[in-house]
Amino acid sequence: MLSDVRIALIHYPVLGKDGKIISSAVTNLDIHDIARTARSYGIKKYYVVTNLPAQQEVVKAVLKYWVDGIGKEQNISRTEALQLVELKSYIEDVIETIEAETNKKPLMFFTSAKKRNNSISYEEGREIVRSTDRPVLVLFGTSWGMPQELLDMCDYVLEPVRARSDYNHLSVRAAAAIIIDRLIGEEV
Amino acid sequence: MLSDVRIALIHYPVLGKDGKIISSAVTNLDIHDIARTARSYGIKKYYVVTNLPAQQEVVKAVLKYWVDGIGKEQNISRTEALQLVELKSYIEDVIETIEAETNKKPLMFFTSAKKRNNSISYEEGREIVRSTDRPVLVLFGTSWGMPQELLDMCDYVLEPVRARSDYNHLSVRAAAAIIIDRLIGEEV
Repeated sequence: MLSDVRIALIHYPVLGKDGKIISSAVTNLDIHDIARTARSYGIKKYYVVTNLPAQQEVVKAVLKYWVDGIGKEQNISRTEALQLVELKSYIEDVIETIEAETNKKPLMFFTSAKKRNNSISYEEGREIVRSTDRPVLVLFGTSWGMPQELLDMCDYVLEPVRARSDYNHLSVRAAAAIIIDRLIGEEV
Repeated sequence: MLSDVRIALIHYPVLGKDGKIISSAVTNLDIHDIARTARSYGIKKYYVVTNLPAQQEVVKAVLKYWVDGIGKEQNISRTEALQLVELKSYIEDVIETIEAETNKKPLMFFTSAKKRNNSISYEEGREIVRSTDRPVLVLFGTSWGMPQELLDMCDYVLEPVRARSDYNHLSVRAAAAIIIDRLIGEEV
């Protein structure tokens, strides 16, 4: 049976083009696409993490329309996906929520387009997801990726997708879909 | 070595909500996301197929900015991805172009969120992609999916992603990423 897998899309802290820590803007389609992927793969929660009030308003507006508003009458399957979304200010809030709900520390996975030391393969990742009795939390970065301080919080680092290709600039929507598929596959 | 794999995103003919054949609108992010996925996986060409002049203008505007315009100075990796995009009016034009370039008929794959008879697994699909000496063309539908007339043109039908899930409403951006990853994986 599928484990308790959750994902988080990080808008702060992330790296800017120049390598400094920034808070990135929320993209409407990141909320929709990744929620639809999450719902398709039996993921329990999709945390959208942003500390900026104006960006939090964007997330709230999308959820208000699709979860509580008339979006439900237009496309119920979109509502069903967006019901998985939970807005959080910081990653610490995500962890706290998971611990409060499950009484367990989440097993955290870091993802990146950059090769890191001690990264694990997707076969290993899949085996861990299948066998752990802890909730699993997979982090996805926006902008130029996630900083060291988030890496340090994680238990495992997944190897980059298409690491041997001369180009691996996937959108976070595509990368999240591929990584979730590699970790969960057709398991229900 | 990776085969000659190409993809096409179909905006006409596709099914509307009521099952009738329509011409769907082009989405800017479909062009970008799927081009980045295509480039990351060594795909040779990404055909955006739309018969509507106004929609063709949208594609041309994106390509003009990113391939020929100042986008190149902003983000060269985006330019590199979008160089794979070719605008076509009809699927017949795509096939004709591939035949003219390769002197071979493309081996065509149909994709769908709906279960069909005689669909093949991704393992089978991957083996075919690896072993064929013909160019491979994978079709992705927009809107409510592709009609029977496109299915009839294809050599193989891939099984739906997450067919056993109670929900498989992936965005075409996510579905294309997952399907391409399942067919090509880390092969370079």
